Amino acid sequence: MIVYGKNVIREAIFAKRPFFALYLDLKFNDDSFIQFLKDYHIRYELVSKDELFNLSKTKNHQGIVANLKDYDYAPIEILKDQKEFQKVIILDSIEDPHNLGAILRTAEATQMSAIIIPKKQQVPLNATVAKVSSGAIEHVPVIEVTNINKAIEQLKSFGFWIVGTDGQTEHDYNDLPKNAHIAVILGNEGSGMRPLVKKNCDLLVKIPMYGKINSLNVSVAAALMMYKMIDEWKMIMNFSI
Amino acid sequence: MIVYGKNVIREAIFAKRPFFALYLDLKFNDDSFIQFLKDYHIRYELVSKDELFNLSKTKNHQGIVANLKDYDYAPIEILKDQKEFQKVIILDSIEDPHNLGAILRTAEATQMSAIIIPKKQQVPLNATVAKVSSGAIEHVPVIEVTNINKAIEQLKSFGFWIVGTDGQTEHDYNDLPKNAHIAVILGNEGSGMRPLVKKNCDLLVKIPMYGKINSLNVSVAAALMMYKMIDEWKMIMNFSI
Repeated sequence: MIVYGKNVIREAIFAKRPFFALYLDLKFNDDSFIQFLKDYHIRYELVSKDELFNLSKTKNHQGIVANLKDYDYAPIEILKDQKEFQKVIILDSIEDPHNLGAILRTAEATQMSAIIIPKKQQVPLNATVAKVSSGAIEHVPVIEVTNINKAIEQLKSFGFWIVGTDGQTEHDYNDLPKNAHIAVILGNEGSGMRPLVKKNCDLLVKIPMYGKINSLNVSVAAALMMYKMIDEWKMIMNFSI
Repeated sequence: MIVYGKNVIREAIFAKRPFFALYLDLKFNDDSFIQFLKDYHIRYELVSKDELFNLSKTKNHQGIVANLKDYDYAPIEILKDQKEFQKVIILDSIEDPHNLGAILRTAEATQMSAIIIPKKQQVPLNATVAKVSSGAIEHVPVIEVTNINKAIEQLKSFGFWIVGTDGQTEHDYNDLPKNAHIAVILGNEGSGMRPLVKKNCDLLVKIPMYGKINSLNVSVAAALMMYKMIDEWKMIMNFSI
């Protein structure tokens, strides 16, 4: 697949992702990046800005475009029989690649165990997602499932607590279960979680809001939930030392 | 100025912002929105999708485009002589309207006192920012200043603590000052805070990150800081009851 941007391509090289081709702007002048490519014995072709635009369909390519092996999805079984408490984010139909990219970026910084996405009505791992993720796409296991509700059942059988996010519930995000495998579900940008998905949750929590409009961007809501999961985790870590 | 989207225009009507014109898609079929316009005695014109695109320069208009009075900026003096502890976000040159919009949305939900932005090298309050803010742009005072460093000096004279965000510092966001007026600075998406701005901070804090890439989207970082400020505020509120 075609990807673009320095961070994306740097992380792909670190991850030893196979390259079919790498194109640099004729006027590419980031010497340290060129040295980096030489250090890793990566061959590239110099092409015009127009050609980079034609390949990437964006002006946002930073002078570097690659054709590389598609991103892989992980199997849900990586979450089975884990001793350490696993932290998972389930996305119930996120449409905007900028949101998925930003969520991957935060998931990398907070070391989530995995992100679970449905196959349909969901933006896949594409070039925009990779770019916005700033290369985090290489480091966060993404599990693609045919049916979110079936995935929830599997996670429950692995010992997970399933936590939905909902503005209209009495519990807030300080009530997240402690000392447990947790999967937190975030719903679609416009319509939220689907009713059956909500029904399958063990617990619903809200993020406290104090204004009149009280709506957060989904990548912001996901970040607040991930950091709340990490805070608990840090507390547990401190406790166990 | 031209704005678009249902939430933006609904909040503009609530805020009694003067309208010069309102255009709806010929095929606009959200009856409850039309009833809302009637209830508020707002006149509109039915036009084609092409015309809406020509007016808004986007396909993202949701069938509704308005020409309304520009968004106003607030003077910095609104932050002077306040008894309640003020919480302010200073943006040091944010380029992406999606980031500013998402920051306004979180600022509304967390009831920040104001957002301060520089006049230059900063995206202004435009239609994209309004749309992404989901109408929060009507509720959050935005202060535009010619010089961020001069604004910092003024805030210091008002009794504010100036807190910069920086990945390379020893303090983390749990070390935010308590029982104080606080202004938290977030830097540009690519280059962070400018050196002189950083030098003028009373304190630098980082958001803890545990991965390899460790970079957060600026609207995510801003949200984590705002919620941390609110957590402190809630603690103070509970304490004083």
